[in-house]
Amino acid sequence: MIAVLKNTATKDEISNLVTWFESQGLKVNESRGEYCTVLGLVGDTTRIDTDMLEGLEIVESVTRISEPFKKANRKFHPEDTVVDCGGVKIGGGHFAVMAGPCSVETREQIVETAKAVKAAGATMLRGGAFKPRTSPYDFQGLKEEGIKLLLEAKEATGLPIVTEIMNSEHLPLFEDIDVIQVGARNMQNFELLKALGRTNKPILLKRGLAATMKELLMSAEYIMSEGNPNVILCERGIRTYETYTRNTFDLSAIPMLKELTHLPIVADPSHATGRASLIKPMAMAATAAGADGLEIEVHPNPSKAWSDGAQSLTFAQFEEVNKAVEKVRGIL
Amino acid sequence: MIAVLKNTATKDEISNLVTWFESQGLKVNESRGEYCTVLGLVGDTTRIDTDMLEGLEIVESVTRISEPFKKANRKFHPEDTVVDCGGVKIGGGHFAVMAGPCSVETREQIVETAKAVKAAGATMLRGGAFKPRTSPYDFQGLKEEGIKLLLEAKEATGLPIVTEIMNSEHLPLFEDIDVIQVGARNMQNFELLKALGRTNKPILLKRGLAATMKELLMSAEYIMSEGNPNVILCERGIRTYETYTRNTFDLSAIPMLKELTHLPIVADPSHATGRASLIKPMAMAATAAGADGLEIEVHPNPSKAWSDGAQSLTFAQFEEVNKAVEKVRGIL
Amino acid sequence: MIAVLKNTATKDEISNLVTWFESQGLKVNESRGEYCTVLGLVGDTTRIDTDMLEGLEIVESVTRISEPFKKANRKFHPEDTVVDCGGVKIGGGHFAVMAGPCSVETREQIVETAKAVKAAGATMLRGGAFKPRTSPYDFQGLKEEGIKLLLEAKEATGLPIVTEIMNSEHLPLFEDIDVIQVGARNMQNFELLKALGRTNKPILLKRGLAATMKELLMSAEYIMSEGNPNVILCERGIRTYETYTRNTFDLSAIPMLKELTHLPIVADPSHATGRASLIKPMAMAATAAGADGLEIEVHPNPSKAWSDGAQSLTFAQFEEVNKAVEKVRGIL
Amino acid sequence: MIAVLKNTATKDEISNLVTWFESQGLKVNESRGEYCTVLGLVGDTTRIDTDMLEGLEIVESVTRISEPFKKANRKFHPEDTVVDCGGVKIGGGHFAVMAGPCSVETREQIVETAKAVKAAGATMLRGGAFKPRTSPYDFQGLKEEGIKLLLEAKEATGLPIVTEIMNSEHLPLFEDIDVIQVGARNMQNFELLKALGRTNKPILLKRGLAATMKELLMSAEYIMSEGNPNVILCERGIRTYETYTRNTFDLSAIPMLKELTHLPIVADPSHATGRASLIKPMAMAATAAGADGLEIEVHPNPSKAWSDGAQSLTFAQFEEVNKAVEKVRGIL
Repeated sequence: MIAVLKNTATKDEISNLVTWFESQGLKVNESRGEYCTVLGLVGDTTRIDTDMLEGLEIVESVTRISEPFKKANRKFHPEDTVVDCGGVKIGGGHFAVMAGPCSVETREQIVETAKAVKAAGATMLRGGAFKPRTSPYDFQGLKEEGIKLLLEAKEATGLPIVTEIMNSEHLPLFEDIDVIQVGARNMQNFELLKALGRTNKPILLKRGLAATMKELLMSAEYIMSEGNPNVILCERGIRTYETYTRNTFDLSAIPMLKELTHLPIVADPSHATGRASLIKPMAMAATAAGADGLEIEVHPNPSKAWSDGAQSLTFAQFEEVNKAVEKVRGIL
Repeated sequence: MIAVLKNTATKDEISNLVTWFESQGLKVNESRGEYCTVLGLVGDTTRIDTDMLEGLEIVESVTRISEPFKKANRKFHPEDTVVDCGGVKIGGGHFAVMAGPCSVETREQIVETAKAVKAAGATMLRGGAFKPRTSPYDFQGLKEEGIKLLLEAKEATGLPIVTEIMNSEHLPLFEDIDVIQVGARNMQNFELLKALGRTNKPILLKRGLAATMKELLMSAEYIMSEGNPNVILCERGIRTYETYTRNTFDLSAIPMLKELTHLPIVADPSHATGRASLIKPMAMAATAAGADGLEIEVHPNPSKAWSDGAQSLTFAQFEEVNKAVEKVRGIL
Repeated sequence: MIAVLKNTATKDEISNLVTWFESQGLKVNESRGEYCTVLGLVGDTTRIDTDMLEGLEIVESVTRISEPFKKANRKFHPEDTVVDCGGVKIGGGHFAVMAGPCSVETREQIVETAKAVKAAGATMLRGGAFKPRTSPYDFQGLKEEGIKLLLEAKEATGLPIVTEIMNSEHLPLFEDIDVIQVGARNMQNFELLKALGRTNKPILLKRGLAATMKELLMSAEYIMSEGNPNVILCERGIRTYETYTRNTFDLSAIPMLKELTHLPIVADPSHATGRASLIKPMAMAATAAGADGLEIEVHPNPSKAWSDGAQSLTFAQFEEVNKAVEKVRGIL
Repeated sequence: MIAVLKNTATKDEISNLVTWFESQGLKVNESRGEYCTVLGLVGDTTRIDTDMLEGLEIVESVTRISEPFKKANRKFHPEDTVVDCGGVKIGGGHFAVMAGPCSVETREQIVETAKAVKAAGATMLRGGAFKPRTSPYDFQGLKEEGIKLLLEAKEATGLPIVTEIMNSEHLPLFEDIDVIQVGARNMQNFELLKALGRTNKPILLKRGLAATMKELLMSAEYIMSEGNPNVILCERGIRTYETYTRNTFDLSAIPMLKELTHLPIVADPSHATGRASLIKPMAMAATAAGADGLEIEVHPNPSKAWSDGAQSLTFAQFEEVNKAVEKVRGIL
C-alpha cells in the first residue's frame, strides 16, 4: 500500500502517522519529493481501511498494491479450486453446463426440460423458484413449490440443481439444492453472503449489474471469510449505455479473473445478451476465453415462458449450442 | 404500450395476439406497414410483462408509453407527498437536513455530533449502526449497540433518527427509529423492500450504484405496493468512469424525478462526491435544483472517522454549508 | 417510426401534424388512448429528424422502428460485403489478421516485424505513423517518415498496410496505403469521415470509446453515403467503470452487428484489454464469436515499445496466438 | 510518480531501471517489500510515458501522483484565468451567459434571437453554422452562410459570437468570430486542437461524451501547449445508462475542475439534459456549483427548430431562467 502525503504535512504529522502504521505491524519506507511525500507500506494491509486513511488531512491519496482479497487470491492459493456440485465437478479442467428455464412454471415444464437438457449434454439443471423482478407487478416465481418441482426434476434425471436464493430466511428450503445462486442484484447483499458463508453449499455468485471484478472478488471473500470455500463466480454482463444487447458481456473478465483468483468462473450468455440469436456465438466465445462452465436458459416453448422468454433457447437450439461448445472445448 | 410485430407475422398470429390482449382488458389499435405491423395497446398495462411479449417470435420490440410505476406516479397523484419523520416533515415545501457521522462510534461522538448539528440547523440526525462495506475486513458498524447510542442522542437533542437497515430480521431493533434507510447496494433487495412495505415507517430509499431513475421508482413501488406510502427517495451519485469524484452526482435526477413522482427527494453530496471540499457547492446546487432535503456527513474529527472520513465535514464546515444552503432556499 | 402525442394535444394540432407527415410521403396510422395518442408512421423515415419531432410541444416521445442506417443495413443488402485490401480479402468468409507495432519506430523495427508476422501467418501489416495520444507531451508518431517506412516494409514482404489517419489534409500521403484506419477518438469526426467517403480506399472504422453500435453504423453510413462502400468495422472495447482491463471488450457486438449490417467486422483484443496476457484467450473468443479478422499489436521488443508496450506481443507470442486462432477457425 | 515492480524483478533489472530514471532527471526512492518493490520518482515526470513503463516486464503498475497537465494546472498558476471574448470577460468572477439557437436557420431567426436574448440578459450569442450530427441524413447546418448571418446578428446587437468549428480548414471563416467552440465529439480531435492552439482566439472546449475530467484537461493542454492560453472548459453532460435525460450532467465537475485548473468553466444545461423543463433548475444548480457561465439554447419557436428543438427555450422562458440565475449569483 502506498500513501501519498500532501506537501503541507509537517514532520511531526508524518512521524506520527509512520508510528501508527508501524503499530499495525507494517514496515514503512519514506520518500520525500518537492510536491509530496510518499510512504510505501509493506506487510499485511488487508485490514487497513483506505477510506479512513484518505480522510486524514495530510493524506493526498492511497493506493493498494496488493489486492484486498486474500482467500480468493491466486497469489496465496495458486492451484485452481474444484467445486463439487452434487457429484458434478467444476473448475480445474472440469467444465459444467447448467441449463434450464428462467422460471420454474409447472412440473411438466421442468421435468421435460431436465430430461431434454440432460440428453443434449447439460450436466446441471438451473431454474428459478424465487425470482427477483424489477417490478412488483411481474411474476415473482413459484417459491417453495418451485423448489419442490426442481427436486422432482432432479429425481427424474439425476441432474444436480442450481437455483437462486433471495433471503437467508429461506435457507432451510435449500437443504437438498446442490448449488445456491446469488443473483446480480444481491451481489452486495452482505447479510445474505455472510449467511451463505456459514453453510458449506456451493455458491454461484453472479457479478452485479455494475460491479467491478474487484468487488465481485470481495463479495466472494465475504462468503469465504465465513468458512465456505465453495464459491463459483459468474460473469453475466454489466450495464453500459449500449442498448442493442441487454447488458455488455465482459468476456475479458474470464481470463482476467483466472489470473486473479483460483475460483471457477462460469459465463451466462443468456442474461448477458438478452437475445436468443446471440447465445451460440457467445457461448462459444466464452468457452474459448477459458470459462469453466456455462449457464444457459432453455425452455420447452420460449414464446410462452413466464419470464425472460426473449433469451431462452428451444431444446433443439440448446443441443446445437452445446455441440458447438464441445467443439471449442476440443481444441483447448 | 406499443408492440411492433415482425413483417413475417401471419394474419392468424397477429389476430391471436390481438385477441389475447383484449382478454387482458386492453383496447388494441393496429397499424400495418411495409416492414412491420404496430399494435397500440390502450388501458392498464402495468401487469403486462414486456419480457414475455418480447419473447414471442412474431414480436420485434415492445415500448411502454405509460410508466410501469403506479403508486409512485405523479400522474395519478398530482400533489406532493409530505412524509412525517418523527415530527419533522419532508416534501411539499418542507426541507429537511439530515446530518451526522457515517458510522456511530461512541456515545460521546454521536451525542456531541447531534448537539452540534442541531445547533447548526440540522433537523434530523443520521448515523450508521449497520454498515455495508465492500470488504469483510473493514469495520462493519456497532450494530445493536449503535442503535442504542443513536436513541440516546435522540433523547439528548430531540432530533429524529435516520439509520440504515441491512436485514429485515433486524426490524425489531428499529422500532424507535424515525426513518429507516435502505442503502444503494440494497436498492434491489426486493425481499427487504417488501418487509419494509409491511411497516408504516418512513423509508429513505437510496438510488443504486448503477440504477436508472425508473428502477429507483420501481423499488419505491415495491415498498408502496405492500401498503407503506412513506417513501423518500435519495440521489447519492451513480457509477461512471470518472475517478476524480467517488461517484457522478446526477443532479438532473432531482427535477426529473419531481416530474415523474410525488415522493420527496433528498440529495446526498457526501457519498456522491466523496470529497469534503465539494460538499458546500454541491449542497447548494442540489438545493437550487429543487431537492426536498440533504443528507450530509459530519464528524467531530473527520480525520479519525472509522469510515468515510474523506467526505465528512467538521462542525464548523457543516455550519457554513447549512448557512449557504439556507441562502439558496431563501431565493427559491 | 412511432410518435406518441400527449393527451393535451388538440384534434386540430394532431390533424396538422398528420398532414405534415403525409406531405413527407409517409402513411400515418392513428390510435387514441386515454393517456396518449399514438401515430404509426410508415414509409421512408430516414430523413425525419427525431430531435425536431420531440421538440414539438404535443409530442411525448418518438421511437424509430426501422434503423436510420440504410447503406450499411443488412435488410437492404443481405449478402456479406467483401472488401479487397490490396489483394487480401476480408468479409464473407475471408478472415484477415492485421498485426504489427502500435507505432512505427525505425526501419529495422518495422521491416523485421513485417517479416516475422508474415511468417507467423498475418495477412496484413499494421503500424501507426500518426498517433493520437491523450497527452501532447507523449510521442506523436513519426508521421510522414512513418508512412515511408511502412511502404518499405510492404515492399519487403508484400503485406498490405493498415495505418491511421488523423487529418484529411494528410490524405495525399496515404495514396499507397491499402487500408486507412479511423481511430476511436475520430469515429465521430464527421468531416474526416466525409473526406474518406470521397476516396475508394478501404476504411477500417474503429468504434468510439463510448459509442453505441448504432452510432458506429451511422459513422459507417457517413463514409458510404459519400460513395465509398469499402468500410470495415472494428470492435476495440468501450469505456466502463472496470479498471483491471483498459476497456471492456464488447464481443457480443460482433454477432449483433453481423445481424444488423453486411459490413465485415474485425476485433482488436490489444486495445480492448490493454494486457498482453489476455490477447490469446480474447483473440480466440473474438474468432469464435464470428469476427472477420483481428488486429493485434506485435513488437520485436514490447518492453521497449514507444507506446502501448503493455499490450504488445513478442513474435513468439503472436505465433502462438495465431495458431490458436486458426484452430478456432477450423471448427467454425 | 510511483512504479511498483514485480517481486520477480532481479537486482540488476531494478538497478538498470533506476539508472534510466535518473538519466531522465528524476530522483528515485526505493522501497522493497515481500511482494513487490516500490520506486518513488520525484521531479518533472510529465514527459514519462506511463504506457511504456507499464510495458516493461518487471513493472506491475505505475501511478501518477502529480497530474500530467501543466499549463492548465492550478498548482503552477494559482490565480483564475480571465478570458476576454470580444470584450466580454469570463472567469475570475466574470459570469457570461451564452444564448441562442442550436442551429442558425435564417437571418430573421438569428437576429431576432440575438435581440431577444440580449434584452433578457445574455452577454454572448451562440448559434451553430457547422453542425455535427450523428446521421449524415440530418440537417448539417448552413455552414459559411450561417457564419455570415451570425456576424450580421453581432452587428445588430453588439453581442460577441460563439460558434462551433469542425475542420481546421474552415479557420479563415472564423476570423471575426469571438469564441470558437470545439464540440464534444471533437474533444480528442488532436489535429484540430493543435490548429486552434496556433491561433489566439478564445476556445470553448466541450467535454467529450465519455471523457474524464483529466482527459478534458489534457485536451486543453493540447491547445495551450501550442501557445494559446485562452481556453474555456464546458461541462455538457456525459453518457451513462440513464435514459430519462439525454446525458448525465456532471455538476460536481465544476467545483472539482476549479480545484484542478485555473481555466474558466461553463455549463450547458441544454445539451446535458435534453429537456426544456429541466433547464431552469439545472441552470440555477450549475451557477450555485460555481460555474463561470452558462450556454443555453433559445429559439423563437422551439417546436419548429431544425435541430434540438426539445431542449430549446422560448424567449420568455429564457428570461425567466436568466432572472433565476441572477438571483443565485446574488447570494454567492
